[in-house]
Amino acid sequence: MHTNSTFTGGFTLPGEAGYEKLTLELAKRWHADVIRDSDGTELSPEILEAGYDIYSTICIIRGHNEWIKQHPEYIQQTFLMTSPIVATSSKLEIDIMKDFFKEQFKVNDTEEAMGYWEVYDRTTNQLVDRANWEYDKEKEVVLLKNIVPWHTYTLSFLAYRIWEEISMYNHVTNSWEAEHLIPIEPRYEAVREYLKEWLHNWCKNHPHTNVVRFTSLFYNFVWMWGASERNRHLFTDWGSYDFTVSSKALKDFEEQYGYALTAEDFINQGKFHVTHMVPQPHTKDWMNFIQDMVVTFGKELVEIVHAYGKKAYVFYDDSWVGLEPYGERFKEYGFDGLIKCVFSGYEARLCAGVDVLVHEIRLHPYLFPVGLGGAPTFQEGGKPEEDARKYWLQVRRALLREPIQRIGLGGYLHLVEEQPAFCNTMDTIVEEFQVIASCLQQEKPVVKNIKIGVLHAWGSLRPWTLSGHFHETYMHDLIHLNEALSGMPFEVVFFSFEEVEKNGLPDVQVIINAGNAGTAWSGGEAWKSSYLVETLTKWVHDGGIFIGVGEPSAVEGFDTYFRMAQVLGVDKDTGARICHGKWQYEVTEEAFLVEGCEVEAGDAIYLTNERTKVVLGNNEKIGMTVHDFGSGKGIYMGGFETTLENNRMLQNLLLWATEEDNHYITDNKYVECAYYEKINKLLCINQSDTCQEVAVTTPTGTFKGKIEAFGFKAVEIETK
Amino acid sequence: MHTNSTFTGGFTLPGEAGYEKLTLELAKRWHADVIRDSDGTELSPEILEAGYDIYSTICIIRGHNEWIKQHPEYIQQTFLMTSPIVATSSKLEIDIMKDFFKEQFKVNDTEEAMGYWEVYDRTTNQLVDRANWEYDKEKEVVLLKNIVPWHTYTLSFLAYRIWEEISMYNHVTNSWEAEHLIPIEPRYEAVREYLKEWLHNWCKNHPHTNVVRFTSLFYNFVWMWGASERNRHLFTDWGSYDFTVSSKALKDFEEQYGYALTAEDFINQGKFHVTHMVPQPHTKDWMNFIQDMVVTFGKELVEIVHAYGKKAYVFYDDSWVGLEPYGERFKEYGFDGLIKCVFSGYEARLCAGVDVLVHEIRLHPYLFPVGLGGAPTFQEGGKPEEDARKYWLQVRRALLREPIQRIGLGGYLHLVEEQPAFCNTMDTIVEEFQVIASCLQQEKPVVKNIKIGVLHAWGSLRPWTLSGHFHETYMHDLIHLNEALSGMPFEVVFFSFEEVEKNGLPDVQVIINAGNAGTAWSGGEAWKSSYLVETLTKWVHDGGIFIGVGEPSAVEGFDTYFRMAQVLGVDKDTGARICHGKWQYEVTEEAFLVEGCEVEAGDAIYLTNERTKVVLGNNEKIGMTVHDFGSGKGIYMGGFETTLENNRMLQNLLLWATEEDNHYITDNKYVECAYYEKINKLLCINQSDTCQEVAVTTPTGTFKGKIEAFGFKAVEIETK
Repeated sequence: MHTNSTFTGGFTLPGEAGYEKLTLELAKRWHADVIRDSDGTELSPEILEAGYDIYSTICIIRGHNEWIKQHPEYIQQTFLMTSPIVATSSKLEIDIMKDFFKEQFKVNDTEEAMGYWEVYDRTTNQLVDRANWEYDKEKEVVLLKNIVPWHTYTLSFLAYRIWEEISMYNHVTNSWEAEHLIPIEPRYEAVREYLKEWLHNWCKNHPHTNVVRFTSLFYNFVWMWGASERNRHLFTDWGSYDFTVSSKALKDFEEQYGYALTAEDFINQGKFHVTHMVPQPHTKDWMNFIQDMVVTFGKELVEIVHAYGKKAYVFYDDSWVGLEPYGERFKEYGFDGLIKCVFSGYEARLCAGVDVLVHEIRLHPYLFPVGLGGAPTFQEGGKPEEDARKYWLQVRRALLREPIQRIGLGGYLHLVEEQPAFCNTMDTIVEEFQVIASCLQQEKPVVKNIKIGVLHAWGSLRPWTLSGHFHETYMHDLIHLNEALSGMPFEVVFFSFEEVEKNGLPDVQVIINAGNAGTAWSGGEAWKSSYLVETLTKWVHDGGIFIGVGEPSAVEGFDTYFRMAQVLGVDKDTGARICHGKWQYEVTEEAFLVEGCEVEAGDAIYLTNERTKVVLGNNEKIGMTVHDFGSGKGIYMGGFETTLENNRMLQNLLLWATEEDNHYITDNKYVECAYYEKINKLLCINQSDTCQEVAVTTPTGTFKGKIEAFGFKAVEIETK
Repeated sequence: MHTNSTFTGGFTLPGEAGYEKLTLELAKRWHADVIRDSDGTELSPEILEAGYDIYSTICIIRGHNEWIKQHPEYIQQTFLMTSPIVATSSKLEIDIMKDFFKEQFKVNDTEEAMGYWEVYDRTTNQLVDRANWEYDKEKEVVLLKNIVPWHTYTLSFLAYRIWEEISMYNHVTNSWEAEHLIPIEPRYEAVREYLKEWLHNWCKNHPHTNVVRFTSLFYNFVWMWGASERNRHLFTDWGSYDFTVSSKALKDFEEQYGYALTAEDFINQGKFHVTHMVPQPHTKDWMNFIQDMVVTFGKELVEIVHAYGKKAYVFYDDSWVGLEPYGERFKEYGFDGLIKCVFSGYEARLCAGVDVLVHEIRLHPYLFPVGLGGAPTFQEGGKPEEDARKYWLQVRRALLREPIQRIGLGGYLHLVEEQPAFCNTMDTIVEEFQVIASCLQQEKPVVKNIKIGVLHAWGSLRPWTLSGHFHETYMHDLIHLNEALSGMPFEVVFFSFEEVEKNGLPDVQVIINAGNAGTAWSGGEAWKSSYLVETLTKWVHDGGIFIGVGEPSAVEGFDTYFRMAQVLGVDKDTGARICHGKWQYEVTEEAFLVEGCEVEAGDAIYLTNERTKVVLGNNEKIGMTVHDFGSGKGIYMGGFETTLENNRMLQNLLLWATEEDNHYITDNKYVECAYYEKINKLLCINQSDTCQEVAVTTPTGTFKGKIEAFGFKAVEIETK
């Protein structure tokens, strides 16, 4: 590798007591400047005193079993809903814990909590009068009477969460036998006082620690486990606030916001409020309410850490709820750094975009015997070096674009002992990262004159991510688009419907709306706004490029299902037009745009007028269309999957639509590049598994060369 | 063939002047007892006087050009809506006839008609004030002013239909050069008087005619043609009443029903009211209103025909709107017979089920140079004998079940001259029909003890058919189910949600609800009824079999999308449950039910509880499930396509679910049979293209034998 990196360090190594030699050897090999512990490992004095900075991970809301057992009312809670049951008479018995993992949940049947319990007739969607049911504490059953036979009934109730979920997962995955850690609820002043004192003591007792790494804050993403192994994960959502509830919180909310929330506001007919769906106003209020406490208390904790001369970093994962790194209040915490675990490019951008001094990404695989979905990683059958390379290829194209100061690993270091191939891969990763970081330390690379706005319900609060990792959200087109965009030489902003209503459109050349109807990504009811439709319509007519993917701008109630049909030139038939004739077409010359790509056909998409040009389609199904509208364009895609070929297609489409030139763009779809103008440095990455020839032109000269499979090349461009 | 048919005649041959020899030869060969004319042919005296009964076709509302030109206000009309246009300023010009086939439509800009014109802002879904637009008669444009820029606008207006659509189609298809026939509107008394006089004269002038065959009554199914050849058929719906509208009708309606309809009630945002979607209450009122006039005047015409000693048959196709052969008022017409053109088994059942003395089916192919979709039939490249056999195979299995008295052909007889293979196929068809008809003349075949109810929005008013022929409705699961059921030994009834609300459930063992959400077939909003849900739930619990296909009982607003999820044991995730865990499963032993079949997987279907048995599925997609519920069952199928194999699967499923035995059922999926008990006659039909061995068991004995490809066998069963 041609490297003249000025960057050193920036690597966080997980150390492990008992493996001091390995720890220190690898620290040197990978230019580590920091050693950390992990959930399940400790650092020994030999490591602590070896001259490295020390990160210590703390998960502040667990590990206090002794204290919490004295104060069981301070255990964290959630609402649960029993499975719907059909009444075959006017009486019904509901075994309330039948569906749930009893090691995670315990009924909260205090009088105060029971004030929030609700029995619903789900057939009529009506609350059952409190007089018609009673609770048998002994048997944990609710007995209904005077109800309508053949209707379906549910009980919503409050339950304590008696096993902190990340610990529960690590425990179950690794067959640990330690005591179950109970999460405690900082909503109560007594808990906050206890925790502050605990943190003071902790800081005192950890003199070697330079950085306290909060993992993460107080509330886990929602993760409800079921009783049956056939249906263990009842509900998992990385963005939902269900685990922040308690009678205390509900009462505080009512006081602050002037209206009360009920169990049903969370339970939502058993659907809860999936982050992929459009958030309700009361959900947003609740999020703000929770964030207020999390920020207020989080800031106090950071101040304690600072008081001991230590830095405070936060891990943006797991118990991140309330953190909202893109929220208006994030700066108030005073965090010195943010760490994001990443599989994908968009996660690197998500990390890099946070307004904080130090950005660190924790690479995958985690040093655990098993990885995603329980597949072997650092054990028989695993190929950790291939996993590491795969994720690195995904991440590094995004790393070229925005500065990330640090990378690192996590888990049990001893697992790499028998994995020389993994260690070699890490050598390459560390080396490449240092070159990239040294460039970005000096300047950002050239971006094309195309600013892209992604429009969805979460907007600037939740850029880049949908809800969790790529493999959890792969079914949504938008995550594929975000992933593709994360490595492109364009500026990308995210904005919400609410933001448009408030501030109008951002200053962008391209707007993307992508998702299934009714989702937060497509937008659902937000599209009922005439203001939104007319503003976007005018914007395109004046020269904007509107790209709709899947079911963009879809909402029922109007003449078209896509509210932007007049701009896109296509609409979706939801059945009401099944007897209507459709415009026949031939594929147009713009078809060159999609050569060699696979674009999913839209479902029941039809042309709304004869001027719409079909780029991909066969008179039965339509994959892509272009519709000139005023001086702008509407572009429709049935779907988008991120692959090397499709990413290039999207990039070409954006360049073509905005009439941009090909400067700073490689001529080979398998190779990407970033050009750092002031230092005249071109970084090229070959994302394919074969050697590639590549040329890159800039206004001042051209680079031509070969680049090996998966290779990385840093060159200077000779000026003409 | 073993035939001892007691049945002769029952065949209607289209004759043709100029081909007298051919006509009379084929009449003899195919045992015709009737000769008819067709649109475009005449019968000569030699044919008229050859001793056959004579059918004469009349399409009463066309062929009066001379008269109608004197009274252009009596031309039939329709509402049309212009394509939505985006306003780029506060003014907009709409060229109102731009989208439409000018040979079919002519603007009705009389003052009275213009009172019904409407300009809509489709962005806000609001009517534009009449003061903000004016009409330029010269240019046929509407000028809008003071409108909101960037919104989308449409004009709805009344247009005369100046070319009767069936004639228009025949004309265009055959490149005729005759004058365009204009349809006249019997809503006006003057037209009715004129037509009655015309019919008197016609009857007087056609002394040879025994049967007046009305083709059909007054109003064509809706068929709007567009200006562009790229989008010729703007809207085609066999069941919609759009072509019955006029200012006179709208005024009469308002008077009779006490409320007024507007253009928008028909236009419906440009969607019109597709028969496949749930009918609106006002749509049903309008249908009743129109039927009232059609019955009243139709009956007068039939009485005239009867007064001349002739019979009156009606052709149930084309201009059938208002006829509603299953409507409560159909008997009032006094028709002596009903003729249905058929491609499929369900159409034979549709014909046979009408309460009228003579049922006749007109077979396909029609004797025309081209057939479906313009494919060659009786010309170079056509294989009319294969078409005839294909349709006959589809029809004959239904013919075994319910009596049809007559078959026939239509079109230009001379086209068969050069088609000996077609004539041979017709020999077989005539022979088989006569055997079937002779059995059914004596008794109906044995049916199993399974009565099936098909539940949809149209119910008993529109049994068997959806809207038009199979090839026009093949995208709906229900037409496949109806087609499969049409030849099975089960009683089948059709009932609507409204009928359930009024009368409760019919006395059936099985209820089928099949279709996409929101369609007339699934039911849409009807499923909001708690009464419906609780009634069906109890019925299944008490032993009923509920079969849901596609998106059965689907409606938004409740805890489950399928309102019968508690019975089916499955539901569809519309996105709100994308983060919810799903029950994992293994395919159960009931999988034998679907061996050798293809069942479409449902979209995003998941198990609602652990007791649901998956008959077909792979933990990603579910094709079929069975859920025991009380003493009954809920059965879900992702879709259903009628094929020989799938039809047998459905039959087996019905027998299995209802615990019926296999008596009177063949042991070979390619062979079907009907058993006529009193006369001890078993009719077997081989629907496959290879010779098959077959056995059929009855309580009194068994038949075993071979049956040739496509063969037909009539046997007696030797009793034990």
